[in-house]
Amino acid sequence: MTKGMNQLLFSAVSVEQVKEVLKKYLEEYEPDIEEVDLLSAYNRVLAEDIVSQEDIPAFNRSTVDGFAVKARDTFGASESMPALLTLVGEIRMGEQTDIKISTGEAAKIPTGGMLPEGSDAVVMLEYTQLMDDTTLWAERPVAPGENVVTKGEDIRRGSVVLKKGHTLRPQDLGALAAVGIDKVKVVKPPLISVISTGDEVKPPGQSIKPGEVRDINTYAICGEVMKWGGQPLPQGIVRDNFGDLYNAVKTALGKSHAVLLTGGSSVGARDHTVKVIESLGKPGVLAHGLPVKPGKPTVVAVVEGKPVIGLPGHPVSAMVIFEIIVRPVISTMLGRPEDYGGTRVLARLSRNMASAAGREDFIRVKLERRGEELWAVPVLGKSGLISSMVDSHGLAHIPPHKQGVAEGELVEVEIY
Amino acid sequence: MTKGMNQLLFSAVSVEQVKEVLKKYLEEYEPDIEEVDLLSAYNRVLAEDIVSQEDIPAFNRSTVDGFAVKARDTFGASESMPALLTLVGEIRMGEQTDIKISTGEAAKIPTGGMLPEGSDAVVMLEYTQLMDDTTLWAERPVAPGENVVTKGEDIRRGSVVLKKGHTLRPQDLGALAAVGIDKVKVVKPPLISVISTGDEVKPPGQSIKPGEVRDINTYAICGEVMKWGGQPLPQGIVRDNFGDLYNAVKTALGKSHAVLLTGGSSVGARDHTVKVIESLGKPGVLAHGLPVKPGKPTVVAVVEGKPVIGLPGHPVSAMVIFEIIVRPVISTMLGRPEDYGGTRVLARLSRNMASAAGREDFIRVKLERRGEELWAVPVLGKSGLISSMVDSHGLAHIPPHKQGVAEGELVEVEIY
Repeated sequence: MTKGMNQLLFSAVSVEQVKEVLKKYLEEYEPDIEEVDLLSAYNRVLAEDIVSQEDIPAFNRSTVDGFAVKARDTFGASESMPALLTLVGEIRMGEQTDIKISTGEAAKIPTGGMLPEGSDAVVMLEYTQLMDDTTLWAERPVAPGENVVTKGEDIRRGSVVLKKGHTLRPQDLGALAAVGIDKVKVVKPPLISVISTGDEVKPPGQSIKPGEVRDINTYAICGEVMKWGGQPLPQGIVRDNFGDLYNAVKTALGKSHAVLLTGGSSVGARDHTVKVIESLGKPGVLAHGLPVKPGKPTVVAVVEGKPVIGLPGHPVSAMVIFEIIVRPVISTMLGRPEDYGGTRVLARLSRNMASAAGREDFIRVKLERRGEELWAVPVLGKSGLISSMVDSHGLAHIPPHKQGVAEGELVEVEIY
Repeated sequence: MTKGMNQLLFSAVSVEQVKEVLKKYLEEYEPDIEEVDLLSAYNRVLAEDIVSQEDIPAFNRSTVDGFAVKARDTFGASESMPALLTLVGEIRMGEQTDIKISTGEAAKIPTGGMLPEGSDAVVMLEYTQLMDDTTLWAERPVAPGENVVTKGEDIRRGSVVLKKGHTLRPQDLGALAAVGIDKVKVVKPPLISVISTGDEVKPPGQSIKPGEVRDINTYAICGEVMKWGGQPLPQGIVRDNFGDLYNAVKTALGKSHAVLLTGGSSVGARDHTVKVIESLGKPGVLAHGLPVKPGKPTVVAVVEGKPVIGLPGHPVSAMVIFEIIVRPVISTMLGRPEDYGGTRVLARLSRNMASAAGREDFIRVKLERRGEELWAVPVLGKSGLISSMVDSHGLAHIPPHKQGVAEGELVEVEIY
């Protein structure tokens, strides 16, 4: 943590400032590392640079079934004027051969076979004719290196195959196997506690009385944590009073790397959240209220090095704030680039949308392809409506310097 | 399976035809179902339609802190001419109230509170002044329904919240919780055996001799299976002879829903694959050779209702064929739409690329944003090079009716 960082950023600061300050506090965060089998490493984050100890392939390798030759012996060859070659043997799969190719000679080779010494190209089987046991016609010329992967052409010894912080895709598992790695060090998912608050909030598995609602946010937010590589620790529903909230946050801080509170979007509930955070440790609240729509009633805090984020109570607002504040926190904890993942596309907004200068707006949209263009059609609805998130494909972003977007203007859409 | 379906489609049929025939054979596939807790259902596929048994919210609900009123009592109100209202009580969170709002009356209400009978809107706290214990000034008018989510506005009783075959995102978990569901029936991942073949192929954890290579495909292909929702059963490396391959495929068929063979791209190895499949059951091989680049040496078969796919040996080709043939098979087995997942964008190709009419080409590309346009820059390299998959962002598609794409032309890119 940098000296002088514990300035409080109250309402109306920019989202970028809040993220910047949060990031500084995370500089000293050290993720836990574990070693796993390669097949268990899919979608995990590398905790080390992988440097190849070998050239891949380790030898010049044929990419076709055919005959290994000296390329220059085939120059000018055609169907009417084939190159005449002497067959001196056959390369067997997976084995080194002691055959040597001299001028005018060829050896049969399978796809993946190791080129014999002296050869530099392979003529494909279909462009050859075997006249007798030792006489071969090549009916097409090959250039040096043709139909061959040369030693080290795929991955060079000493090169960095994959970098620390990279999230392993299927092809990356393949590349690690190629260089002989069957176990890798990966980052353990950070543990993220999720506390739902509200006297009116009940778990989904029980019936509710008039005035009560079900706990949507625990499920939507734990889902987001999983989606972005964290391990959620759902802490249940806590009543909206200082004592219960204090105990819940304190317990959660003891067993997790970050704490998310959801709900409590009424003024009184937010006051409890702020008081609880301030009484638990330093530096406490960094920002209270963000210039974001939807998502204004947000509390961003750090307690003894751990982020504590009070998300708004409305599910859509909670998910928007998760996206812009919590997701980069989890990525940083995993050692991923802060902007890891998600797919952003440019699309034309289908109607005028107003915004306020200095405020970032996130609009739920459906994406439609119209001819060669992608259009974003706003799904309007109050931020309390979870159905509007279910029915949309992504969030269009109106940046803080804009006062609105006109119909047909390009906007950036983050696809769910 | 439809009568008359067991036609064999040999080389040079279109990919669409092969997919169509495979799909017919999968019509009788019945996935296994399991019931899981809502939090374990993230990214799983729903095995049932979810119909809401309730209106959500179950009551008219305030979206702000303020005062519940009859909207018409505030019409024309302003700072200089506030509406005068009588405060008759306070709504408590999570509780039904017996307060009734008559003309000229108001009741204090928190965000999420249940509107009292007779009220139809909420004036926000910041636009009111409490003059004494029972006298309230409202300084702005509200329209009927303003700052209120009405009963059933989010999700209507009897409506389908989510459909069978839908893959559950975070917001979907939230919507299921909202309607009171804490356990859901989801599809079990199909078991997909992955067999690697080749006398020269060795596992990554051991040193190799000249002529030998490491098993890339088991890892890349098992990664793909996981990515698209299947459960991979890696069967290790099998030597390239009829007996070993026969035993391996037979064993794999006994314990999985589909079998993928990788490697064996030499002519001899492909012949083994075809003979083994033909000897194991009907209908056997449907297509041998596909008009796809890279990916031609592919064997598509069905044995006793189970897909058996011989992928090409080159890792890039194997991954391309996985993408176009195997991924839709897994999606169909899961009950997902066949084209589920993946993100396709339109981008301009950065250079001319030739193709052959009747052949589908897939080009590894990096995506670059140039101004407002997205460009796809081909990553050239032989299909044996796993590094070209690691270094690219997606596959650009040249459809079979085109003989090439000119620089600047739009292509569809499937992002990894």
